[in-house]
Amino acid sequence: MSQKPIGIFDSGLGGITVLRSLAERFPHESFVYLGDIARLPYGNKSPETIRLYGLQIMRWLKNQDVKAIIIACNSASSVFLGEESFEGIPLFNVIEPGAQAVMKTGARSVAVLGTSATIRSKAYSRTLKELNPKIEVEEISCPLFVPLVEEGETEGIITKAVFDKYLLGLRSQNPEAVILGCTHYPMLKKALQAYLGSEVKLIESGEVLSGLLESLCQEKDSRQIRLCITDLTDHFERLAREFLQGQAIDSLEKVVL
Amino acid sequence: MSQKPIGIFDSGLGGITVLRSLAERFPHESFVYLGDIARLPYGNKSPETIRLYGLQIMRWLKNQDVKAIIIACNSASSVFLGEESFEGIPLFNVIEPGAQAVMKTGARSVAVLGTSATIRSKAYSRTLKELNPKIEVEEISCPLFVPLVEEGETEGIITKAVFDKYLLGLRSQNPEAVILGCTHYPMLKKALQAYLGSEVKLIESGEVLSGLLESLCQEKDSRQIRLCITDLTDHFERLAREFLQGQAIDSLEKVVL
Repeated sequence: MSQKPIGIFDSGLGGITVLRSLAERFPHESFVYLGDIARLPYGNKSPETIRLYGLQIMRWLKNQDVKAIIIACNSASSVFLGEESFEGIPLFNVIEPGAQAVMKTGARSVAVLGTSATIRSKAYSRTLKELNPKIEVEEISCPLFVPLVEEGETEGIITKAVFDKYLLGLRSQNPEAVILGCTHYPMLKKALQAYLGSEVKLIESGEVLSGLLESLCQEKDSRQIRLCITDLTDHFERLAREFLQGQAIDSLEKVVL
Repeated sequence: MSQKPIGIFDSGLGGITVLRSLAERFPHESFVYLGDIARLPYGNKSPETIRLYGLQIMRWLKNQDVKAIIIACNSASSVFLGEESFEGIPLFNVIEPGAQAVMKTGARSVAVLGTSATIRSKAYSRTLKELNPKIEVEEISCPLFVPLVEEGETEGIITKAVFDKYLLGLRSQNPEAVILGCTHYPMLKKALQAYLGSEVKLIESGEVLSGLLESLCQEKDSRQIRLCITDLTDHFERLAREFLQGQAIDSLEKVVL
């Protein structure tokens, strides 16, 4: 069991930010990552379509004999919220760990930034209110953030203008904590910290996942990391390397679902 | 034959700009439009994947008993360039008419704006050079234009900053003609004309299609316009209405391919 890989999936490459932090935390662990690039983005799709795609991917990961599945995509997590297993395999999403991380900061008010699908689902506010009914939550949909990251616009004039569009009101409120509710957004963390001020605690939901996975992970044996995507272009190869930030992988494969 | 509808497809809603101009030109004609919203955008996908999706959609349109198929998507057009029929049904793309429209202007140099897939394919420069080997062509990939249009950012600070990113050099060259090489871009036409100057001729490839279709179209009988999309959200319903700009449709249907 312990030698089986951990399966991770996302609509695209954003979930690699989660893969990276887990691969650093568990250096002997194997991973299979599936990025559904052919059908990205999920953030503006309906819950029915996202669920259909998610089930298809989880079936594929099950065939890769994974010991756990991590939904490293907030839009997909919002659709599978509260589900703890898929056909007997432990299932983790990125929303519940993010909400738990907010509790640890002691923040009384929190803002959630996410895609249209994630914000529309109200998954974060529901989860946060279950943990602390008194917490104030503001959810802000930022649909241009993913295209910005995909085009490498993580600082500069365009980024600033897009921040002004979505976050001008938030900045004036001096929020205590802000959840980066999309796995692309860690790539904007530096610019967001500068824009919102150094006081605000920015929470990457992926970071907290490692605590939950501890009991499943091994401490010896050699690892293998496979990066599988449903479409392959030069652009995405370049982007994958940026997201990996030096983390080595063993294979990059194109997969047809 | 003449009473059969014309089939039109695009990765999303951008192709509605083509549907709209054909519906205005041929008021007795019926249309079936297929927007593959569940898998948009095509602009950053590989040619193999775009071809696979295109064939799937053309098979679906054939089952709707269309008398002609229009590929109202530049990224898909670039993959099917030069193909004049699909299983016996006349097939039209938006690239060749756009190139012919440039010839009519007499321009000696032209810039093409498009998605990554369209520009990477070099479909416009190849087609333009075939028509006039001496013409100067500059192709510029503008991957943030589609997300801008999808988010309603068709003027203002963000739009200006994105124009500066892609078109600052072009503006200083005072181009004679610019092809809007993506069916989303007509929504940016006003802002582009203001940015590039009133002298430059902006070419919507869809406009020229109507001449090619004349022999296929009827002049009486009542029409029906069906808008079919592979995913349905409030956002896309709103967006569809913006693209339609008052053109009435008979049905909006969700289709699973």
